[in-house]
Amino acid sequence: MSSKCLFQWFLFFFFFFILLTSATSKKFNIPRLSPIGPRISLEDPESLSESSLSDDLETYFYNQTLDHFNYNPESYNTFQQRYVISSKYWGGSNSKYAPIFVYFGAEAPLDGDLYIVGFLSDNAIKFKALLVYIEHRFYGKSIPFGSQEEAVKNASVRGYFNSAQALADYAEIILHVKKTFDAENSPVIVIGGSYGGMLASWFRLKYPHIALGALASSAPILYFDDITPQDGYYSLVTKDYKEASESCYQTIQKSWPEIDQLASQPNGLAILSKKFKTCKPLTDVDELKDYLDTMYSGAAQYNKPPKYPVTVVCNGIDGSNTDSDGNDTLSKIFGGVVAYRGNRTCYINSPTNVSETSVGWRWQTCSEMVIPIGRGNDTMFPPDPFDLNAYVQDCKASYGVPPRPRWVTTYYGGHSIKLILQRFGSNIIFSNGLRDPYSSGGVLANISDTIVAVYTSEGSHCLDILQANKTTDPEWLVAQRNTEINIIDQWINKYYDDLHNQQ
Amino acid sequence: MSSKCLFQWFLFFFFFFILLTSATSKKFNIPRLSPIGPRISLEDPESLSESSLSDDLETYFYNQTLDHFNYNPESYNTFQQRYVISSKYWGGSNSKYAPIFVYFGAEAPLDGDLYIVGFLSDNAIKFKALLVYIEHRFYGKSIPFGSQEEAVKNASVRGYFNSAQALADYAEIILHVKKTFDAENSPVIVIGGSYGGMLASWFRLKYPHIALGALASSAPILYFDDITPQDGYYSLVTKDYKEASESCYQTIQKSWPEIDQLASQPNGLAILSKKFKTCKPLTDVDELKDYLDTMYSGAAQYNKPPKYPVTVVCNGIDGSNTDSDGNDTLSKIFGGVVAYRGNRTCYINSPTNVSETSVGWRWQTCSEMVIPIGRGNDTMFPPDPFDLNAYVQDCKASYGVPPRPRWVTTYYGGHSIKLILQRFGSNIIFSNGLRDPYSSGGVLANISDTIVAVYTSEGSHCLDILQANKTTDPEWLVAQRNTEINIIDQWINKYYDDLHNQQ
Repeated sequence: MSSKCLFQWFLFFFFFFILLTSATSKKFNIPRLSPIGPRISLEDPESLSESSLSDDLETYFYNQTLDHFNYNPESYNTFQQRYVISSKYWGGSNSKYAPIFVYFGAEAPLDGDLYIVGFLSDNAIKFKALLVYIEHRFYGKSIPFGSQEEAVKNASVRGYFNSAQALADYAEIILHVKKTFDAENSPVIVIGGSYGGMLASWFRLKYPHIALGALASSAPILYFDDITPQDGYYSLVTKDYKEASESCYQTIQKSWPEIDQLASQPNGLAILSKKFKTCKPLTDVDELKDYLDTMYSGAAQYNKPPKYPVTVVCNGIDGSNTDSDGNDTLSKIFGGVVAYRGNRTCYINSPTNVSETSVGWRWQTCSEMVIPIGRGNDTMFPPDPFDLNAYVQDCKASYGVPPRPRWVTTYYGGHSIKLILQRFGSNIIFSNGLRDPYSSGGVLANISDTIVAVYTSEGSHCLDILQANKTTDPEWLVAQRNTEINIIDQWINKYYDDLHNQQ
Repeated sequence: MSSKCLFQWFLFFFFFFILLTSATSKKFNIPRLSPIGPRISLEDPESLSESSLSDDLETYFYNQTLDHFNYNPESYNTFQQRYVISSKYWGGSNSKYAPIFVYFGAEAPLDGDLYIVGFLSDNAIKFKALLVYIEHRFYGKSIPFGSQEEAVKNASVRGYFNSAQALADYAEIILHVKKTFDAENSPVIVIGGSYGGMLASWFRLKYPHIALGALASSAPILYFDDITPQDGYYSLVTKDYKEASESCYQTIQKSWPEIDQLASQPNGLAILSKKFKTCKPLTDVDELKDYLDTMYSGAAQYNKPPKYPVTVVCNGIDGSNTDSDGNDTLSKIFGGVVAYRGNRTCYINSPTNVSETSVGWRWQTCSEMVIPIGRGNDTMFPPDPFDLNAYVQDCKASYGVPPRPRWVTTYYGGHSIKLILQRFGSNIIFSNGLRDPYSSGGVLANISDTIVAVYTSEGSHCLDILQANKTTDPEWLVAQRNTEINIIDQWINKYYDDLHNQQ
């Protein structure tokens, strides 16, 4: 696989949590990726009442073990791991019903999540819940040995940067919080989205003695190894556009060869630069194609009410006329860019610095989180199959060591998940929105009475755990959240019954 | 806690698997521990038909990852891990019923287990099972970087020597074997005893996608942290003796002050040396007391039919007369030694070299396997409470790093086990014999319909998984094994039903 392709799906993982981190989106400046995406994904991030939320929050640091699975002297090093608590609505350890909701930070600093993930704060009063947000190691203020850049550059240090260590971190901090709050018997519900949702579901499976249940939002735990077809992601992106507008889909589909053809002409890149009003002249056609790919995928992944970015893009594409050069297709595509990004003096701006999400997730995907996303012949994109060997070589060239692409399924499973879990485990909600391309790697059918799939046809990535909006949330989203709340309530009630029955 | 006390419970862990390793018992030469124990524990180890068993076995080596939970360059080092397979009775991957039985090696070289653990080979025909025996890392022929002594001496290398890494080793090898035998759909039952039994139960909980079920024989998974009272072990030893003979129990109880009193007299050690016919003159009274402690505990732990070593010791004690010095108590105790050990020219022989079990388990107990065994005032032994601080200091002095005494309960759980697992997990048999002092830390009540306790009042340590003997096995032991076999058979049948229903 080309390094371009490698880059591409770092890009999609960048999108993974871009909504959740858009409060810090000023930092996001990934090469060849415009920071437009996250701003579009939220209607108006500036309007979020940050101050009212942060009033309740207290920040702590835990002296975390660097390596939970080794006992050499170096593994005893510690780092400061950030976690944030809101105890304002907690019922207390003696209450007959007062759970602990724990949010698992993912591949980003925690800051953004505190304001955007509303599931915890929206439900704190109803559940009398203690809220705990824990930052993932190697992000934000929870980085061993200095800055993230230094930590990830150091071959010895970045080795500790992986999911099993992160889950063990969460285990230690939850036990510490329970002890601090004298809440040993209070049930813990862990909540996460995207990669954080994978962590939440895996945590319930690996640490059932610490978490009573998990809400795993948009967690593509089946997008590993050969479980999910490699073109699952792009097939769904394509489907989203086709459903929004057949003509839009067709325009996008036929744009790629036209872009390539134009680029191959003398002065072609200059023409494309002018046509797409790029801030700097294009030096490679892939800059444009990656930009468009990211835009289409991002709009699909975060195809969120009330605006529905895919509709925005398609309206722009469908509503554009032939330009002065007579190139119908490319001017339509540019119309989509303008509709999505708004009127600007120029587009496709080169970023100047790289986000923590980009740096961190690149390492994570090059070590264990090998999610094989490729494109076959049936999408609106040019074919680009996932090539594991090339991928491994690219990662090895970057980091000196190859990824372990089978480790996730070895440690966490995933194959034949219904067969395995229908008689094992309990209390996991896998929530998805079927318009989210990552739902192709999600759990979309109930596994048992208590390991359940809750999805909406219209939903997008992590939508259910974002802050509720009484004005604009559609009924199906309100209904999805209510279903989840009722299920979690049942887990908690059953737990307290069990607790009292044993005493 | 004194280093003596530390030594004491290494000693008991040495006994953990002494039966299972007695084929290699010539190697066992722990300081102040006579190799008598294991020879008594089996009626006649030489009579075991080693050749007939070994005919079926083929030895392999797997190129195992040194560190599954790190991605630094060093963690990519590999070592050769031994596993042994018998495919003679396997039904094959296309069979409607042909499971894989996997035995988890524990704190000893695998060799001994192959001949003594009969549960797999005894049931291979009935189940048409593929048999796999895997050696635990850092024992036998599965040691990274040279000899065990070198590996454990090296502070960097021994860090990799822990249970989480061992479970991941087992996961990789099982997946490799399934792939090699084209047996991806064949259900795996993992089996282990003592520490290996803990590993088996933990493996089912952590890797349900790899093991369908676990038989955890004599696994004291609750003997961690504050879950089990610290004197559980010695209380049961005491109970065994009291039930065997009240007078024997009383004689042992009053012997300790008499030994101390005699030792404190001028020439007292010489008198004791003569009285106990020691091979070398005693230099410290603890040599004698530790020897007796070990003998009593070992006889209780392996209080196995048909001879029942506790009865042997007590018959020796009760049947002895006052000696020529008029010391009734100590001559009775010596009578117990002679009865247990047989007529010898001398007793309490100093060993000349240290076994792998002793070296390896000492490290394991000084890093994560912190099992707090102490003695209160209610046993037949002198009081000797477990002192965690002293223990930690002793370990730190030996290895430079302190143990992590809370890690086992953090990673594997254990507190409120019924509350936690009654609605989580399935398919674990916790088998115990209530005369085994380690059963005090075992699971002795059903947790759910499929996580069950199968125990016998008369049984001893790991008795159920040892080779069956049609002539001498008592009915209750045959019944226990049949119960286990029927439960496992149900798991497997249900699995195949599920497998076929999903297709």
